[in-house]
Amino acid sequence: MAKKRTTKKRTTSKGPGPAVRSTDKATLARIDKLADKVVRTSLAKKDPNLVIPSRSLSNTSYNKSKRILQMGSATSDRPLFDLKTARKFMQTVLLSSGVKDLVGAGKTLSLRGMYYMSLHTIQGTKEKTLNDQTESDAVLEDLEVMLGSLREELHVFAKKRGTMIGNITIIDNGDEINCRKMGTGGYAIPSICEDSVIQFKNCEADFVLHVEKDTVWQRFNEDRFWEKHNCILTEGSGQPPRGVRRMLRRLNEELGLPVYCLLDCDPWGHYIYSVIKQGSIALAYESQRMAIPDAKFMGIRAIDYERCGLSDDVQIALNDRDITRAKQIADYPWFANKKPWQLEIKKMLSNGFKMEVESLITKDISYVTEVYVPERLDAQDWLD
Amino acid sequence: MAKKRTTKKRTTSKGPGPAVRSTDKATLARIDKLADKVVRTSLAKKDPNLVIPSRSLSNTSYNKSKRILQMGSATSDRPLFDLKTARKFMQTVLLSSGVKDLVGAGKTLSLRGMYYMSLHTIQGTKEKTLNDQTESDAVLEDLEVMLGSLREELHVFAKKRGTMIGNITIIDNGDEINCRKMGTGGYAIPSICEDSVIQFKNCEADFVLHVEKDTVWQRFNEDRFWEKHNCILTEGSGQPPRGVRRMLRRLNEELGLPVYCLLDCDPWGHYIYSVIKQGSIALAYESQRMAIPDAKFMGIRAIDYERCGLSDDVQIALNDRDITRAKQIADYPWFANKKPWQLEIKKMLSNGFKMEVESLITKDISYVTEVYVPERLDAQDWLD
Repeated sequence: MAKKRTTKKRTTSKGPGPAVRSTDKATLARIDKLADKVVRTSLAKKDPNLVIPSRSLSNTSYNKSKRILQMGSATSDRPLFDLKTARKFMQTVLLSSGVKDLVGAGKTLSLRGMYYMSLHTIQGTKEKTLNDQTESDAVLEDLEVMLGSLREELHVFAKKRGTMIGNITIIDNGDEINCRKMGTGGYAIPSICEDSVIQFKNCEADFVLHVEKDTVWQRFNEDRFWEKHNCILTEGSGQPPRGVRRMLRRLNEELGLPVYCLLDCDPWGHYIYSVIKQGSIALAYESQRMAIPDAKFMGIRAIDYERCGLSDDVQIALNDRDITRAKQIADYPWFANKKPWQLEIKKMLSNGFKMEVESLITKDISYVTEVYVPERLDAQDWLD
Repeated sequence: MAKKRTTKKRTTSKGPGPAVRSTDKATLARIDKLADKVVRTSLAKKDPNLVIPSRSLSNTSYNKSKRILQMGSATSDRPLFDLKTARKFMQTVLLSSGVKDLVGAGKTLSLRGMYYMSLHTIQGTKEKTLNDQTESDAVLEDLEVMLGSLREELHVFAKKRGTMIGNITIIDNGDEINCRKMGTGGYAIPSICEDSVIQFKNCEADFVLHVEKDTVWQRFNEDRFWEKHNCILTEGSGQPPRGVRRMLRRLNEELGLPVYCLLDCDPWGHYIYSVIKQGSIALAYESQRMAIPDAKFMGIRAIDYERCGLSDDVQIALNDRDITRAKQIADYPWFANKKPWQLEIKKMLSNGFKMEVESLITKDISYVTEVYVPERLDAQDWLD
């Protein structure tokens, strides 16, 4: 029954991927400016230098009014004529050039791909431009902050995870995707969710429910929760990757949809919420484009053990590492002054156990979709 | 801009998920038969016993004519009145009952969900039915072989991964999914790809190209390879999960599409191919429904270093573990008698290095989609 292979030499109507758009032009202009400065300095017979905004923890702070993590103004120099920084200077210019080619060609590459693209032996030596991918990854983070462009705007992406379904139609690279008709599988959220690739078309949803795990998402999809409760349903397979965070942020910011998070009652669940809400401490510069300060934590709550009448079957003892992490998270500036969060973490610690979302299955297979979440929504009962 | 939450109490047209279909009826009948036997034995005042086909390695063999892994006829007893097996007997009956409820309700659950569903304290004791999820996972594997039903037919699934795009329209739980119009994200391949959930509608594709990583898949999708070469493009994010394997198998078996695999040139890539082709040694009983004996290994080949004129940038040294694994794989019965595979592994070992698919980026961003794979397809150059 196998058919003969036929190669169609047709011209594609869409070109080789996202074309050079206005955001791409802005990115290219910033790279040109960076390169110009190096050239001008050299021609003026001065020492070329790159100024890199510092990504250290000490240069990260919580902006209370904007309610996001922010980088301070500290910078570090990366002069060419210094044995300590010469190699990094070369790598920074090399990766800038690679990004320029990539954006110019309207193509995207993975972090791994960028490593290979920039890897070669320096002429006349036996030295490689890069020892391993950690070097190119770090330089790409430098480039993000130097250029003021998200990595996605540099056309570089990481592994994708996460799926979406619900009352929304989106346009993805010209294709219309009706997320109400995506079966059991769903739409795979891409790594790059910038508006140059993804546009929102029709959305009747009232909110977004983001769940931690794809297995829980499956329960909600199977019970057609998104249809009954008029929402969008997303999952990030644990800590959501940047594509999912950017999608959630855009749904919140551009469509005004509240984002409710259903995560485990454990320090990992609290940390996932913290990253969705305020951003990652290690990558503070992305927060202004990724964080959702209004995101709500719906559960699982430490009081649910009593409130939902759960049996001791669901208890997973907190270990020493959990306890340490829980106390660290309680001290995060955005939780430290919030009494409900202090009580939540205190209650979990006094319980002495964690609980997973799946533990609600001990009540009934569909308890979480038919009782737990609807009750929280009706009572507007969540942590902020 | 946030809208007020409105809960729609509409009746869904599709019911609560996959309805009880003919395969489900067959599964239910098998569970009833199992339970009947236990009851009849008890009423006859004989000792109840469950007979479990043995999943041990010694009971696994390679069927040369069918070209798949197969289980032998060895079984083990699981009597109720034996201290060594009483607990497992109880768990087996308990999980059977859980599966019956699940299938009867037309719902599905994750392995984790099945654990919680079956977990309780045995009346009048302090003993739990299950100590941890490994116990319920093992019993579910027993049930698969006892009932002769795939885990998916028991409505139980594991974490999903993997995406698909290309010249095919499928029906997923009643929704029509045009895989030609799935943007940059793609259709997320569900955990359960049985024909009770997924049906194929229109397919013009000539073959399936399965790539190891989502980041490589992204390159092929962006270059619209599936459109130019009239194919379906899948990825499994490493070792493909059962959903992806079952989807590939059905595309091969029901639509007669050849499956070409583009994987890394390393023992892990060879092992992924081996599992796609013959099945997993640890779970031989699934092979007859999952394995694709005709699947081809397109590359990366050890000769590609010279053939494609790659630089030493792409070399990743084989470590001791790689060398041991490579020799083990060379000894697999389905590779042992194939000279091309023996030469392939020998060449990799004499190279002394591995190569990733992404290493082709050192030639050009789109070398893999524009040169490498088209050349292999035209020359029908692959390993079998």
